Amino acid sequence: MQDKRTLTIVKIGGNVLDDELLLNNVLRDFAAIAGAKILVHGGGKLATRTAERLGLKAVFSEGRRITDASMLEVAVMAYAGWISKSIAAMLQHSGINALGLSGADANLILAVKRAPEPIDFGFVGDVVAVDSGNLSALMEAGFTPVFSAITHDGRGQLLNTNADTIAAEIAMACSSLYEVKLWYCFEKKGVLQNSQNDDSVIQKLTFGNYEKLREQDAVHSGMLPKLENCFRALENGVSNIRIGSPEMLKKDSAIFTEITN
Amino acid sequence: MQDKRTLTIVKIGGNVLDDELLLNNVLRDFAAIAGAKILVHGGGKLATRTAERLGLKAVFSEGRRITDASMLEVAVMAYAGWISKSIAAMLQHSGINALGLSGADANLILAVKRAPEPIDFGFVGDVVAVDSGNLSALMEAGFTPVFSAITHDGRGQLLNTNADTIAAEIAMACSSLYEVKLWYCFEKKGVLQNSQNDDSVIQKLTFGNYEKLREQDAVHSGMLPKLENCFRALENGVSNIRIGSPEMLKKDSAIFTEITN
Repeated sequence: MQDKRTLTIVKIGGNVLDDELLLNNVLRDFAAIAGAKILVHGGGKLATRTAERLGLKAVFSEGRRITDASMLEVAVMAYAGWISKSIAAMLQHSGINALGLSGADANLILAVKRAPEPIDFGFVGDVVAVDSGNLSALMEAGFTPVFSAITHDGRGQLLNTNADTIAAEIAMACSSLYEVKLWYCFEKKGVLQNSQNDDSVIQKLTFGNYEKLREQDAVHSGMLPKLENCFRALENGVSNIRIGSPEMLKKDSAIFTEITN
Repeated sequence: MQDKRTLTIVKIGGNVLDDELLLNNVLRDFAAIAGAKILVHGGGKLATRTAERLGLKAVFSEGRRITDASMLEVAVMAYAGWISKSIAAMLQHSGINALGLSGADANLILAVKRAPEPIDFGFVGDVVAVDSGNLSALMEAGFTPVFSAITHDGRGQLLNTNADTIAAEIAMACSSLYEVKLWYCFEKKGVLQNSQNDDSVIQKLTFGNYEKLREQDAVHSGMLPKLENCFRALENGVSNIRIGSPEMLKKDSAIFTEITN
């Protein structure tokens, strides 16, 4: 039996997108990763800044953006427009044949609008299906997908979806076709044992350890959904999962948190 | 020798994009076109409206938008973001496997920033090359490209490019691989003999006739670049070129201007 090909999925967040020099370096490191690869990006400050300039007020509930019709338009413009196409252009310059995609493109990520109870999040979508056949066809044709966190409901409606979740869903859907690596880049070097000490990176985090940390309130609340995504992916065929700074994209990098059994 | 496959390229303009009901109908007619097809869309009022709300002033020179850095960001957000992804989602709903693309994606349209003399248009690009190999690979894999009028220079810079020109350049580049039809939809039923009479549609327009009309100042100035693109495409392998209202996408439509030798 032939070994499965490797697919590396890298999620980058706002801290990378908002720093042009850092973004350039990260994209150069991403370009150097061998084998099939996918970049998933969040939104950074552009959507919030644009919304503010348009006189729209960003509303959050439990750390998640409430997306009304105007805010959806801004999110699609910022994420699937400027950020997606800028990254595609920058990767082309690095010799990577990038394709800036939303979930509506090639029907890649189908979602369902979240029920309005108990909180009405507006035009926010929960992922229903990733079309790994279409996605694989694009990669086998030599293209490198760059995903913004925009999905669709199959009936013409675009939806806003959490970028960490999109990365995990793509990873799980592709795990039958590829040996998937799922790497989350964020502003710290990894999951910290002590939030006051940036160098207290937990090298290997099991679900058991995670539950203990959570009981001790030792995990920052913003990390909880990211870690839930990691453990869900681990349960569903993704074997190599890392959380760390963009430094971990470099070949010899050793400092990051590995999510493991 | 096998006959070349048919490729229909449809350009839709602002009048379609700004009318939701019309856009729905046009996309339904586009979806029903048999064979390979490409949609090219302009920007409509969204970019101008967004720019105004952001306090940016739209500046035009000789009918063309001057694109400074802020205006480029707005154009990319509006054209390659909201409009592109909304159309992709609507076409998915019609069963068409659409892909919303800019020229940076898959390196499909390489352009060069226009020289700043005699007028500095800012971040405006003139098309250098269409990668018909990548474009054909996407279509042969079953995808329907939807192009916004954004290109790139291959060095990481996005550029704003005229949508009529993009449609013509794609048509010419694909003419060695496909039997290309190039159809421009706009607000009139065709090129008019008498601009005061909307029913005075010229059924067949040759370059000779066009030059006569131009000498008589009988062609609206906005039509001139569109017609120049048509005749350039006609000289370069595109045999079926039409200008008319979106009605011409319907199967039995007979009222439009055919650009012919």
